[in-house]
Amino acid sequence: MTTGSAHHVVIVGAGFGGLEAVRRLVRTAVRITVIDRRNHHLFQPLLYQVATASLATSEIAWPIRSLLRGYENVTTLLGRVVGVDSREKRVLLEDGATVSYDILVLATGARHAYFGHDEWEPYAPGLKTIEDATAIRRRILTAFEEAERAIDKAARRALLTFVVIGGGPTGVELAGTIAELARDTLRSDFRNIDTRDARVVLVEAGPRLLAGFRENLSAYAQRALTKLGVEVRLGRPVTDCTAEGVETGGEHLAARTIIWAAGVAASPAAEWLHAAADRAGRLIVQPDLTVPGQPDIFAIGDTVHVDMADGKTVPGIAPAAKQEGRYVADTIKARLDGRDPLPPFRYKDAGSLATIGKRAAVVDFGWIRFMGRFAWWLWGFAHIYFLIGMRHRLAVALSWLWIYFTGQRSARLITQGRTGKVHET
Amino acid sequence: MTTGSAHHVVIVGAGFGGLEAVRRLVRTAVRITVIDRRNHHLFQPLLYQVATASLATSEIAWPIRSLLRGYENVTTLLGRVVGVDSREKRVLLEDGATVSYDILVLATGARHAYFGHDEWEPYAPGLKTIEDATAIRRRILTAFEEAERAIDKAARRALLTFVVIGGGPTGVELAGTIAELARDTLRSDFRNIDTRDARVVLVEAGPRLLAGFRENLSAYAQRALTKLGVEVRLGRPVTDCTAEGVETGGEHLAARTIIWAAGVAASPAAEWLHAAADRAGRLIVQPDLTVPGQPDIFAIGDTVHVDMADGKTVPGIAPAAKQEGRYVADTIKARLDGRDPLPPFRYKDAGSLATIGKRAAVVDFGWIRFMGRFAWWLWGFAHIYFLIGMRHRLAVALSWLWIYFTGQRSARLITQGRTGKVHET
Repeated sequence: MTTGSAHHVVIVGAGFGGLEAVRRLVRTAVRITVIDRRNHHLFQPLLYQVATASLATSEIAWPIRSLLRGYENVTTLLGRVVGVDSREKRVLLEDGATVSYDILVLATGARHAYFGHDEWEPYAPGLKTIEDATAIRRRILTAFEEAERAIDKAARRALLTFVVIGGGPTGVELAGTIAELARDTLRSDFRNIDTRDARVVLVEAGPRLLAGFRENLSAYAQRALTKLGVEVRLGRPVTDCTAEGVETGGEHLAARTIIWAAGVAASPAAEWLHAAADRAGRLIVQPDLTVPGQPDIFAIGDTVHVDMADGKTVPGIAPAAKQEGRYVADTIKARLDGRDPLPPFRYKDAGSLATIGKRAAVVDFGWIRFMGRFAWWLWGFAHIYFLIGMRHRLAVALSWLWIYFTGQRSARLITQGRTGKVHET
Repeated sequence: MTTGSAHHVVIVGAGFGGLEAVRRLVRTAVRITVIDRRNHHLFQPLLYQVATASLATSEIAWPIRSLLRGYENVTTLLGRVVGVDSREKRVLLEDGATVSYDILVLATGARHAYFGHDEWEPYAPGLKTIEDATAIRRRILTAFEEAERAIDKAARRALLTFVVIGGGPTGVELAGTIAELARDTLRSDFRNIDTRDARVVLVEAGPRLLAGFRENLSAYAQRALTKLGVEVRLGRPVTDCTAEGVETGGEHLAARTIIWAAGVAASPAAEWLHAAADRAGRLIVQPDLTVPGQPDIFAIGDTVHVDMADGKTVPGIAPAAKQEGRYVADTIKARLDGRDPLPPFRYKDAGSLATIGKRAAVVDFGWIRFMGRFAWWLWGFAHIYFLIGMRHRLAVALSWLWIYFTGQRSARLITQGRTGKVHET
């Protein structure tokens, strides 16, 4: 299977979509090369738990080459792709190396984006990588530390105000967990402040939270957050983020910690191929997920725009990326076998889940919907099920049960700031 | 107990010594303030396991204020001490704040040191903080990644050569674990290199490894390391470290990864007090662990030099720091009660332990000595016992049993480098 003459499939990006394509292809007579700029696959749906000190970084990230070690026809490369030469059929890496392909699958994902306001990033960091998560964790925990030492009342108030921008699942989950951190986990750790005084404000530009869910689930999520003490502000587009706080709908929120969960922009895959993209930079692919005019190049996941038969767009979530990865693998197999092409890609909605703190969640499977405590347990089991490897399932289950029963979080580390520096810059 | 008029004990540094002093004092009618520049207590004896991808950072570090939450007379401050004004009896913090004390305990530890060759640090990082450990982990794992892509044979050879400088417990444990990583954990993950070809060289200036242990245990450790494939070089002082490698005893070792485990220097506590220090910068304290001429200032742990009755110096290890912490707490209690001062501090050697990979260890309790597999299990149980909190004991036990039975390590993350950048600078 590993002969040099075998068809060479190059997959760029080992996220949910890329890995699924690899797994579906490994028993085929192809050589596969997986290129990623990080050495680890990241379980992004739980990244907010690293940012809020609930899970350790290594509980939600796995070395890619270790995941793929058992497949002899797969080679893993750590490298940053900076372009595609589709005429010569090769991928260009940052260090000048090139990798030739017969078939290319681009699964390069997305990054958080500020819609033309990149100047907000230093004040309102987003959450896409392990480093983003540890940086947000550092900011949240440092804010409480500084508040403990603050003498000025207004300064203390701003230190204890946390604004989360964006009312999608990540924003809802972050706001709920920060509220719990303040009201439960940290409560008896401080002497000069009452951490329960912390304000957590969730700002959403649209008319409701969790726009991808049904309205009654949105309403439930809002009630559950309010019960946790989160202030929910709907219909409030953010007009400015500074070191002093957030401007939203004419209101100034004085806050030292702002977290951006409001939007993403696709990777530059469309630019590499000089292909058409939508407003978010997502490459617009054909119904068979190939790039227009490039039958040997597929693109999947958060970096693409796929229209469905009903006119909607496939959402940028893990299950969609995985389905696309499977579809592309099956299409490649059909081509190599000389079979007819598959019917166009169809997205099957597998349901949506979001948690609110450690007691409530909303689950929408389409045919059935849950909310409340049972939904939280369902969410927990689903996520543990999808984690890769028994080792991580055990570790995450242990961490969660510990938090659930004791309220204590084990990953409360302030790291990577200037050692001992209390004031963030 | 928390009245403003109570005696105020300020403890700087929440390492083993500082924390032990706090614990021993909490039931006394004093106010205690603990100041540390980091928010976490670090279990340093296991730091090498983070550096070698065996444990997650949060498995060996705990938030200080969470450890001390139950003691109402204890206040925890995150801050960097930059001086002591012993006339006014106050501690100076970096941000200009001051903290007054009645009694001061300095437990500010040590940092790795290059004996006048600070220019070696970029090439041969040391291991004292969480960030040091993740940086070394990144270097080790990145070296294998780069070797997988290297075309030039000599470059690949240098990438697969790991030099550990210093044959104390940390050096022995690092060298053994890197050898296992190469020979076992990573073996089937790469396609272009055989990770078993990696060279691990342990360089020690003195005549034997583990100078603090008996000679037969040193000899056993050397045999066990050699069996794991480590090249042990004794009597070889290092004369230069560069980006190209290490010069030692006239020999040039071409190596891209060098780790410094050869020496430490004390914190600047002696400078703050304009007190006498030994060559390593350690403050020379009185037999009752007070600073000469300053009966209200105690100093303990790695930052002090304490001579024993037999002319030897108390070693810079965790059990010694803890014994000193207990002694200082008891001395303070005796003073407050108006009792006679305690007899001078006496160090009780509780034994020394060091592991070689995941199968062997040496244990020297003075009255009995072990080596081999049983010693390894003993080492493991001892360390799990000394970990703080049931949660961490469970997590670390799970991690170790997993590595023991599967050979897989869960914390193989390359983080905090420039994202996706393969070449370290």
